[in-house]
Amino acid sequence: MARSTSLSGFTEWLPAERLVELHVLDTLCEVFERHGFSSLESRAVETLSTLLQKGEVDKEIYAVSRLQDELSDDAAPKKDGQLALRFDNTVPFARYVVENAGHLNFPFRRYQIQKVWRGERPQEGRYREFTQADIDVIGEGTLPFRSDVEIAVVIAQALDTLPIGEFRLRINNRKLAQGFYTALGLEDTVAVLRSIDKLEKIGPEQVAAELQETAGATPEQAQKALSLAQIRTEDTSFVAQVRQLAEGLGGDTSLLEEGLAELEELIGEVGKRVPGRAVADLSIARGLDYYTGTVYETVLVGHESLGSICSGGRYESLASKGKRTFPGVGISIGVTRLVARMLSAGMATPTRSVPTAVYVALRTEEDWGAAQDVADQLRSRGINVEVALKAEKFGKQIRHADRRGIPFVWFTDENGNHEVKDIRSGDQITADPTTWSPGAEDLLPRIVESV
Amino acid sequence: MARSTSLSGFTEWLPAERLVELHVLDTLCEVFERHGFSSLESRAVETLSTLLQKGEVDKEIYAVSRLQDELSDDAAPKKDGQLALRFDNTVPFARYVVENAGHLNFPFRRYQIQKVWRGERPQEGRYREFTQADIDVIGEGTLPFRSDVEIAVVIAQALDTLPIGEFRLRINNRKLAQGFYTALGLEDTVAVLRSIDKLEKIGPEQVAAELQETAGATPEQAQKALSLAQIRTEDTSFVAQVRQLAEGLGGDTSLLEEGLAELEELIGEVGKRVPGRAVADLSIARGLDYYTGTVYETVLVGHESLGSICSGGRYESLASKGKRTFPGVGISIGVTRLVARMLSAGMATPTRSVPTAVYVALRTEEDWGAAQDVADQLRSRGINVEVALKAEKFGKQIRHADRRGIPFVWFTDENGNHEVKDIRSGDQITADPTTWSPGAEDLLPRIVESV
Repeated sequence: MARSTSLSGFTEWLPAERLVELHVLDTLCEVFERHGFSSLESRAVETLSTLLQKGEVDKEIYAVSRLQDELSDDAAPKKDGQLALRFDNTVPFARYVVENAGHLNFPFRRYQIQKVWRGERPQEGRYREFTQADIDVIGEGTLPFRSDVEIAVVIAQALDTLPIGEFRLRINNRKLAQGFYTALGLEDTVAVLRSIDKLEKIGPEQVAAELQETAGATPEQAQKALSLAQIRTEDTSFVAQVRQLAEGLGGDTSLLEEGLAELEELIGEVGKRVPGRAVADLSIARGLDYYTGTVYETVLVGHESLGSICSGGRYESLASKGKRTFPGVGISIGVTRLVARMLSAGMATPTRSVPTAVYVALRTEEDWGAAQDVADQLRSRGINVEVALKAEKFGKQIRHADRRGIPFVWFTDENGNHEVKDIRSGDQITADPTTWSPGAEDLLPRIVESV
Repeated sequence: MARSTSLSGFTEWLPAERLVELHVLDTLCEVFERHGFSSLESRAVETLSTLLQKGEVDKEIYAVSRLQDELSDDAAPKKDGQLALRFDNTVPFARYVVENAGHLNFPFRRYQIQKVWRGERPQEGRYREFTQADIDVIGEGTLPFRSDVEIAVVIAQALDTLPIGEFRLRINNRKLAQGFYTALGLEDTVAVLRSIDKLEKIGPEQVAAELQETAGATPEQAQKALSLAQIRTEDTSFVAQVRQLAEGLGGDTSLLEEGLAELEELIGEVGKRVPGRAVADLSIARGLDYYTGTVYETVLVGHESLGSICSGGRYESLASKGKRTFPGVGISIGVTRLVARMLSAGMATPTRSVPTAVYVALRTEEDWGAAQDVADQLRSRGINVEVALKAEKFGKQIRHADRRGIPFVWFTDENGNHEVKDIRSGDQITADPTTWSPGAEDLLPRIVESV
């Protein structure tokens, strides 16, 4: 991690680091499939009009054009047909669902693990290219609220299987927040959400000032909005706190009640199925996104400054085709941000840096074919093997295997007798290529949790 | 495959199609790791100067720029720092090796499976975005020729494990070809290679004419060059044929002999280790690439019009850092092209279109938690399970599972008795969630070869 990258904001792993990332990805795929999510990928490019349809101007979009066209005269940006790189996996998925609706069965569940690109100012925890791992459930016409519960449960179970220590899903509901603001008499709920979203960054006093400036709040209204945002409970006791706060508000509280009921069900069910992982946190706003109900963020305990490692929510109207609508709910793990922290904080280490378990040494140049025969015998039993490329002195071949992190070196003498050496212990034993195996611990590189 | 795509040249699979692609990718990863190749990924963007360093102007490059910059005034293309999408995995890997040389041990072996982009005119078998699966071995200073043999063996073994029928690796050696042309008195060997590369497309007569026009060949020289290109043998008998053809050529034949010796070793060894998969084909040129010795192409027998599904070669000087050079050899499978043909020709079919094996039906809305408990018991034993989102009539729930392609539906009655129904046969049996399993055939979707 001390390496500098040649393009800032673009991370490339070394082989051992990539093994940690692969472990994370493999684990996620397995948990997602265990819950019936299908793997999908979307193309890297979207039309600019698709990307901008929800007014996502805060994402720094990368435009894409054929170099040939750019060097020619008609290089004028053609806004609608202009291609650009996706900045998340949700907007492309919504477009995919609309295009392929006739070939899918709803409710449809998919996972999607792909790179996304944002032309942001690079800083710690921010990347210009990074991998996101998304799960979404999307319905046709309606999608039961139960899916919001399920998404939280699946992602908590997935994160639980990773060597990342404690984490907390912080969950809120936009209906609750917006219903409260409306009942409070604040009409511009988007402006309120935007200010509340800055609570952790700028603190309550500045948020109160901003609410009065940009959302037209009185000092009392600002205070009430702030009080709501400061509610945080690990169980459903937030419901009573909100009701108390909302007492005597004159306006229509039906949206507030709807949001309260949803969040109560979610926190209750998730608390039962994955205890201690979720918290109702009424400060979560996700200001500028396309969410309409539940919103999720996730912090790594002890690494709160990293920001959310996993975010998402319910979107009622991202995808539609004529009169057909496809409401969905989903969440996305910021894999690159998470893996970078796992590496820099030393949370997980691979037992070796290469897939290879056995390095077959060469006695003479003529032995390469026989050495490959030995290697193939081992490979046929699931052992990863490479053969030396040159018949250098054994000491040199052993040093090369050692530097590459390969645990075993295989020798065959002129009479066809085989021996295998564990270069860590120095132990060397006679061995039969049709039966010998490294122990289960050494068969594949494993990722071990560091404490 | 009958679907039209909304952006031509950009393919997106449906869930069942993606399962076929995943099977191909998983199989390739396994074979590559079995031979000690490490997984790596590079960033999607390179500087234009990196991409153009080998004069690869025939690749239609996609330029990338921040939309914000493009909409501002200083949108003038800054050629050197200009970012662009990679068009293959080899050039980025060479750049990666140079940047990270201090962290790698040579000879270094890696596989890399990623999307690449080319702004080509879309046509059958050509894509603007497609997945390539590359393996390369890269040395420092020198890399034994043996690696060229190994690459051919590994890729032949990898393709052998895929449900794609017969294929042929067509292998040539640039030293052989260039040595022959030079001995023949043709100085502009690049122009000759470029013409020979068109042999299959435009036929021998037109190639002969072009050789005289662009490479300054006499009719006799053109004929000799064509005769060389028409040599094709499954064993090493090409050596005698080339020697006969080269008899009496006045020039220096040392490069020719070097190429002959290399190709003879390669065809001999590959013929021994994976019989019937490789052929010496002296028409293979790969005209405009960075290859300096061995060149590989691969055709699917019966699908020759598809073009090469797997190509590569030896590159002596793609990567260097001061006085250090990193010669390499590698090959790349065109995964998208291959999978598209597997699907359109019906070579492989998934046994079902979703990962889910069991659909747990809901008797009442209140049963969702209990149904998830049953699902978790099954999941803990490696079974992929989803739970119904609504307590609709059982018939409707069964139809939904059936449409999604899920083989089993699970029912729990009001007394907690469990039954599981195979919806294909209609058989329904009592079952215990802590012990019941689908058969091995139904545990996961499998890809079956269609004959």
